[in-house]
Amino acid sequence: MDIPFIPKSEFDRFRSLPLDEPTRLKLIADGCRLNALSAVKRAGSGHLGSSLSAMDVVVRLYEAEMNTVRVGIASPDRDVYFSSKGHDVPGLYAVLFSHGIVPLDRFLRLRRMNGLDGHPDVGVPGIEANSGSLGMGISKGRGIAWAKTAQGNGGRVFVMIGDGELQEGQNYEALRTTVNQGVHNLTVLVDHNKVQSDKPVEEIGDLGDLERKFAAFGWHVTRCDGNDPTALGLAFLAMGQVSDRPTMLIADTLKGAGVSFMEHPRALATGKGQYPWHAGAPDDASFEAAHLELRHKIENVLRDLAVAPLALFVPEPPELLVGPALQVQNSLGEPVSIEMHPKVGGMSGEYVVEAYGDALLELADEVPEMVVLDADLAADCRTRKFERAHPDRFIQCGIAEQDMVSMAGGLARHGRLPIVNSFASFLASRANEQIYNNATEKSKIIYANHYGGLIPAGPGKSHQSLRDVSLLTSIPGVTVVQPANAAETRAALRWMVLENPGVGVLRLAIGPSPRTLETPPLVPGRGCRLTEGEDAVLFAYGPVMLSEAMLAAEALAERGFGLRVVNLPWLNRFDVAWLESELAGYERAFVLEDHARVGGLGDRLVGALHDAEVLPIPFHVYGIDGHPGCGTPPEVLRFHGLDGPSIAARILARAR
Amino acid sequence: MDIPFIPKSEFDRFRSLPLDEPTRLKLIADGCRLNALSAVKRAGSGHLGSSLSAMDVVVRLYEAEMNTVRVGIASPDRDVYFSSKGHDVPGLYAVLFSHGIVPLDRFLRLRRMNGLDGHPDVGVPGIEANSGSLGMGISKGRGIAWAKTAQGNGGRVFVMIGDGELQEGQNYEALRTTVNQGVHNLTVLVDHNKVQSDKPVEEIGDLGDLERKFAAFGWHVTRCDGNDPTALGLAFLAMGQVSDRPTMLIADTLKGAGVSFMEHPRALATGKGQYPWHAGAPDDASFEAAHLELRHKIENVLRDLAVAPLALFVPEPPELLVGPALQVQNSLGEPVSIEMHPKVGGMSGEYVVEAYGDALLELADEVPEMVVLDADLAADCRTRKFERAHPDRFIQCGIAEQDMVSMAGGLARHGRLPIVNSFASFLASRANEQIYNNATEKSKIIYANHYGGLIPAGPGKSHQSLRDVSLLTSIPGVTVVQPANAAETRAALRWMVLENPGVGVLRLAIGPSPRTLETPPLVPGRGCRLTEGEDAVLFAYGPVMLSEAMLAAEALAERGFGLRVVNLPWLNRFDVAWLESELAGYERAFVLEDHARVGGLGDRLVGALHDAEVLPIPFHVYGIDGHPGCGTPPEVLRFHGLDGPSIAARILARAR
Repeated sequence: MDIPFIPKSEFDRFRSLPLDEPTRLKLIADGCRLNALSAVKRAGSGHLGSSLSAMDVVVRLYEAEMNTVRVGIASPDRDVYFSSKGHDVPGLYAVLFSHGIVPLDRFLRLRRMNGLDGHPDVGVPGIEANSGSLGMGISKGRGIAWAKTAQGNGGRVFVMIGDGELQEGQNYEALRTTVNQGVHNLTVLVDHNKVQSDKPVEEIGDLGDLERKFAAFGWHVTRCDGNDPTALGLAFLAMGQVSDRPTMLIADTLKGAGVSFMEHPRALATGKGQYPWHAGAPDDASFEAAHLELRHKIENVLRDLAVAPLALFVPEPPELLVGPALQVQNSLGEPVSIEMHPKVGGMSGEYVVEAYGDALLELADEVPEMVVLDADLAADCRTRKFERAHPDRFIQCGIAEQDMVSMAGGLARHGRLPIVNSFASFLASRANEQIYNNATEKSKIIYANHYGGLIPAGPGKSHQSLRDVSLLTSIPGVTVVQPANAAETRAALRWMVLENPGVGVLRLAIGPSPRTLETPPLVPGRGCRLTEGEDAVLFAYGPVMLSEAMLAAEALAERGFGLRVVNLPWLNRFDVAWLESELAGYERAFVLEDHARVGGLGDRLVGALHDAEVLPIPFHVYGIDGHPGCGTPPEVLRFHGLDGPSIAARILARAR
Repeated sequence: MDIPFIPKSEFDRFRSLPLDEPTRLKLIADGCRLNALSAVKRAGSGHLGSSLSAMDVVVRLYEAEMNTVRVGIASPDRDVYFSSKGHDVPGLYAVLFSHGIVPLDRFLRLRRMNGLDGHPDVGVPGIEANSGSLGMGISKGRGIAWAKTAQGNGGRVFVMIGDGELQEGQNYEALRTTVNQGVHNLTVLVDHNKVQSDKPVEEIGDLGDLERKFAAFGWHVTRCDGNDPTALGLAFLAMGQVSDRPTMLIADTLKGAGVSFMEHPRALATGKGQYPWHAGAPDDASFEAAHLELRHKIENVLRDLAVAPLALFVPEPPELLVGPALQVQNSLGEPVSIEMHPKVGGMSGEYVVEAYGDALLELADEVPEMVVLDADLAADCRTRKFERAHPDRFIQCGIAEQDMVSMAGGLARHGRLPIVNSFASFLASRANEQIYNNATEKSKIIYANHYGGLIPAGPGKSHQSLRDVSLLTSIPGVTVVQPANAAETRAALRWMVLENPGVGVLRLAIGPSPRTLETPPLVPGRGCRLTEGEDAVLFAYGPVMLSEAMLAAEALAERGFGLRVVNLPWLNRFDVAWLESELAGYERAFVLEDHARVGGLGDRLVGALHDAEVLPIPFHVYGIDGHPGCGTPPEVLRFHGLDGPSIAARILARAR
């Protein structure tokens, strides 16, 4: 399918047309909407809903309010804009592309290696701050504003935050400190689009009277229709008069603004209460319809002016997964060549997280004290079935992981068994001290750490969780398990709920399993062999890395090297006698982490062997070194040297 | 010096006297104040200021508002009270003692093994939640309240929070969710004593109009004089009428209430703006004066009634450090006998944290872009000299570690070099995701992780930081150093500021160094030998554990076993060639952690050797297993088997 884009030259033309400012800004915004839509479609994933809702504000900033384009993105006197929520970045990329700040070749590589990260990264021209993990923006923006003042640099700082994001407590720390520290060159823009991920903010965590709240924190608060260029102009004018306080604009926007069927009042009705355009690329028909609608708006303006019609271009499709080598720097800063391999990154129909959702439901009747807690990721974490079946045992905390975890602590102290859900990168890190505090009370709580590991690699480093095992295994009494398949997922959850007296951490892959693995019943501390081989033994876990491990074993077998692949879902608890028997006869062992090399299974395995005085053989641990790459699964696995063929080569080099 | 206490029987008598309620409650409160004062004096440390400010509220709860004493602390229908800030727990212990809930033998063992923890722990009778790390209480209280409703249990939940504590963002997550989830059987009590640690709240992080803020979050807000029993009675009466919302009482109290010279208006004036009675035991003269003042108040009431005068008792002094064996369970739940050893836990005059404060000041002129950030621990972290000398480069964030760290991220993006200070247990954990986010921007930031390690062990497990190395070393580009002495502290900070391009984590002991260690100049990745010996090599770090390591070496030398003790301040960065040379000739190596066994130096050392294909010899890693004990340094080191004699015995058992 053709995916047409508007070239930068057309935006330059839009800027020169004899239009009143509101019409001109709307024209540019709709052009950027179209390009954001095309970029997400081309990438196959990305966040459209808030890219569209925030667009009129972002376009106004770069066209009319900020000096950034004029003085240049490297000027210390530039105005600074960034979005704290960050998932609206496809929209921002489109705006930066329209100004020539993001070059065409990168704009066409959204969520690809050497392209544009799925959440903001300062490695991309024009991106001022890394975000994607929520609630940090006001604090960081204040740091930038403070530094500007301290150095006598010009420029204001504008930070966009989402309304769902306002559930994060750090915002309220920052609202206070900004006033306390007298930082007044900071403006916060709330993209108040009323919908967070897939449900209304009112339903997930109603924010109450926002103007009253912010005013109570000492801010100057303005409010307007955030998709109306005229209203926005007046609001910015009003804020420009304020110099004795930091300023905040509550921009009432429509999630999906600009595409009628993606705008939330209609989209929520169509989706029966669920908003379908938060994340993910639209299907072909929806893409065509949205593209057409935006194009028509633009063409109508051009037609009224009787100027040349809209010029679009259709770029070459993105390179195939099997294709020419890509020259990149790997995570250690070394140049490497990525050639796609046909066997990398296959797919089965299995999602371990689906098995988790089903097992939750199955346990609900057996364990009446079980309650499920969510921080606005019910769809991704597959807890919605449980929510529907047991609304009185489902607790929605909104985007407030710390609050959710401490609430779980209270529930557990008084007879409930809480199952706490979020993405691992948020739960294990943001709520780390709260998890520790609960553990000191010796309460039984189960933490479901979703989206553990490197893949999918499109959302980028704020979402890929490669540190969660390290963050939790130093807490006494915690057992971390990452199942390899649906059967192990069910068994691990049942073991945690029904048998294990302590804290259970169930680490789950979020994407499809590359292959369906057959495993025997789960035994605490033990794994199972997936391949046999006499030359070396490799321990791995989780559906993604086990698939790569098996690809490695296949590649090695072709070269006469026998690799035993052991699936070891127990990441910090081992039956040492079993471990010894698995190692018997080998002179060399390998561990493949779906985690940083530091603090994962490898550290725990080697530590356990030394503790047990099992004479250690050389262990080589392969994990994600450096920050994770953003791209397609095959690209990123290769980038880190963790795809099957790379692993095979690394093993051969060591064991030769 | 005699430290007299009021026995429980006197409190029973107070309750039976023919007094009006306000006078009776004040009498009991003053009695509990006296006992809290004596307990802290006996312990040699503890938090008095807020124990005194909160006392009238706590006494009112247990005497007049809650059913807890009547139905019993195990009843599922009991009312639940706990303090989120937790450092007011000496006051709560005194109240629980007055009701016979905390038994005498434990009450006399504040901050001692088998006694009462320095911050609340549910292992103590009547303690409902672990706290001490701030901001979790409303969330946890809501969990308890929710569980009560779900199970049809009676009882309300009362949570005390501090005003300084209200700077933590989690509170605002919880204020919202409590309303959103319709939890109305929860009352929050703000001990608004206007002083946080040693300075006024207004100065550290002014909270603005609290009533307006809380009302904006949808709570029913009452406010009264929190040291006036009559006013408190009316306030609780008013709150009792509210059933459609959660309720909040802002109790305006005096920090140090009940002892004239400890009350904050006077104490702040005496202390020239700094409040001296937040933590630590009073000196003898102050103790005597405070004790006398409280005794006189009580005696006056009794005299007016013409009843028997106040009976006090003077318990035996606490056992000496060298004394009879103490039978306890160690952190693994096994029974052990603790006999004090005269050589354990000595003291030199050195504080590495003083050297840190001096080095900061020294660097200030050399590095003008350096800024220092604090989260209300300026005295403990020795940043006050810098604050006074460079107020324009010192940023006070209040108790808001996440906000502080993200602000540092913004500062670093725009040309400043931030040095971020807090206790390791809070900074590395609470702000973990923010530290990670900053690291993904590749910004140079230095985190000073104060109070790293097991000692002092009086404050308890919320403060002892035994996981911070594990929490930070999985972040790419982070170097963690724990210096052994003042010289290494200065050198490590200078290296981080002047030479290291990446993120530096300076882990610092907070207490006095047990001995003064001589060390050669610091070389990245290398340590130095402190003792020589041919039978085994032991790696350790930091003044506390190095001292124990040297005691072990001395004990082993007496038995003809030579132990080489190597001080290795680099916890995750090694010169492997140097490491090999240090290991050469040994068949066995040991690591002594001032950290959990998981995720510390041992894991990193062994991992580096395996990575480098240095043939591994057996490594035994001794660290803190289980949750840390609370007590005196010798008690707790022995409890964990980490005092010199225990280490010597463990090494002998392994290497024999």
